[in-house]
Amino acid sequence: MKSMTLIPQSHPRAKSLQIREMLVNGFDQGLVAKEGLMAHGRGETFDYLLGERTSISAKKAIKAAAVTLLAASYPVISVNGNIAALCPKEIVHLSRVIHAKIEVNLFYANDKRKKNIVKILKKHGAKEILGINRKSSRSISTLDSARRFIDKDGIYLADVVLVPLEDGDRTQALRKIKKIVITFDLNPLSRTSQTANITIVDNVIRGMKELINLTKTLSKKKNIQMNKFDNKKNLSQSVIEIKKHLTRRLHNA
Amino acid sequence: MKSMTLIPQSHPRAKSLQIREMLVNGFDQGLVAKEGLMAHGRGETFDYLLGERTSISAKKAIKAAAVTLLAASYPVISVNGNIAALCPKEIVHLSRVIHAKIEVNLFYANDKRKKNIVKILKKHGAKEILGINRKSSRSISTLDSARRFIDKDGIYLADVVLVPLEDGDRTQALRKIKKIVITFDLNPLSRTSQTANITIVDNVIRGMKELINLTKTLSKKKNIQMNKFDNKKNLSQSVIEIKKHLTRRLHNA
Repeated sequence: MKSMTLIPQSHPRAKSLQIREMLVNGFDQGLVAKEGLMAHGRGETFDYLLGERTSISAKKAIKAAAVTLLAASYPVISVNGNIAALCPKEIVHLSRVIHAKIEVNLFYANDKRKKNIVKILKKHGAKEILGINRKSSRSISTLDSARRFIDKDGIYLADVVLVPLEDGDRTQALRKIKKIVITFDLNPLSRTSQTANITIVDNVIRGMKELINLTKTLSKKKNIQMNKFDNKKNLSQSVIEIKKHLTRRLHNA
Repeated sequence: MKSMTLIPQSHPRAKSLQIREMLVNGFDQGLVAKEGLMAHGRGETFDYLLGERTSISAKKAIKAAAVTLLAASYPVISVNGNIAALCPKEIVHLSRVIHAKIEVNLFYANDKRKKNIVKILKKHGAKEILGINRKSSRSISTLDSARRFIDKDGIYLADVVLVPLEDGDRTQALRKIKKIVITFDLNPLSRTSQTANITIVDNVIRGMKELINLTKTLSKKKNIQMNKFDNKKNLSQSVIEIKKHLTRRLHNA
């Protein structure tokens, strides 16, 4: 993170400002799209409204995600510009713990940006990265041309796909081709959140760390118990948390 | 607005996507900062949570703003990159109706961006634009060096300042030097919202039109009655509206 020294640690919103800077740096490095900067802003408001902490319902979703990823026979982590800017180390780390493939998939297709994302993932230790060879691409018929491609050795074969910060159309398309979809999305009401099998309503900076720690712990156990997980119910809980937090903030205003 | 044809009018979020494109175009034209793109995203979430309509409390604030601006002896409209990208025509139009000066004031100071903002305002008919001549600048002592400057013929002399999409530090500084501050801010809990005298919690695309129409109507009247306006109470009402809307959305999810 460059130029982080400009933000005083005493600033009431220091952490949020530092993450903002990671996105701006990611933009300057050619990882993040302009639209990605706006999308980050949208997420930031939801995080603010959730009190900028990993909620109980987020923890439940992280638990369900960890168990599902470890039980998967062919898990794939889908990477876009924003997640590459925020969690390059964590993506590589998680892929090792859960033995997952990494596939680059961009909403705003752009070969140069793809290359920059590959570069940063490799810098953080990724060996194999899918989604970059046109000859390996297969298409999802329900999506429009620019966004329909998936890798024949990646998402095409996957049973479980982790798609952090994904858009609604792609999430729906992945569900239609029978993938189990796990996502990070700070808007509990978004189409992605409502369509995925497991939605982690949390800031990826906090949630990815928690997910890695939990998969590491669980991977050492012989038997993993999967509690019943109801995504819709869990999402409702997130909305209730936002409402509670609004009431609290209003009283402090 | 370029490339707007790419967004189908049938898209459930077409309006929001069109506004997003205005920001991206504004960025490409050198009006908007990277941080401005993220700030727009933050506002977008609040607008989404408010149901993307001008609420009753927003209308109350617009009424109070219109009366205050018309009654002002030296009103000034402060312009930054985002408002220049979204409402260049409206800024010029409003300045004529209320006989206000226009002053460019950027959070992320940048002479080139300032010039581009001046250019677009002039393109929309602005004659005089303040805040661009270093010799005319005076400083607000409570702000750090990059953001402390105001124009001696603009905000320095103003009794009432309209600062749409402003940051908390500047709003507080303007209040400290005894300016009556009117702002547009979609976050009813932000420092700007809580510090300003009148906060219009509305999307500027909708709110500016409403403000212009109302000032036009009121400017033709001989006597204008000012109802009592309680900003804090009005902001609480906005928070309640967000909570109500969340409940509604949850039931429809």
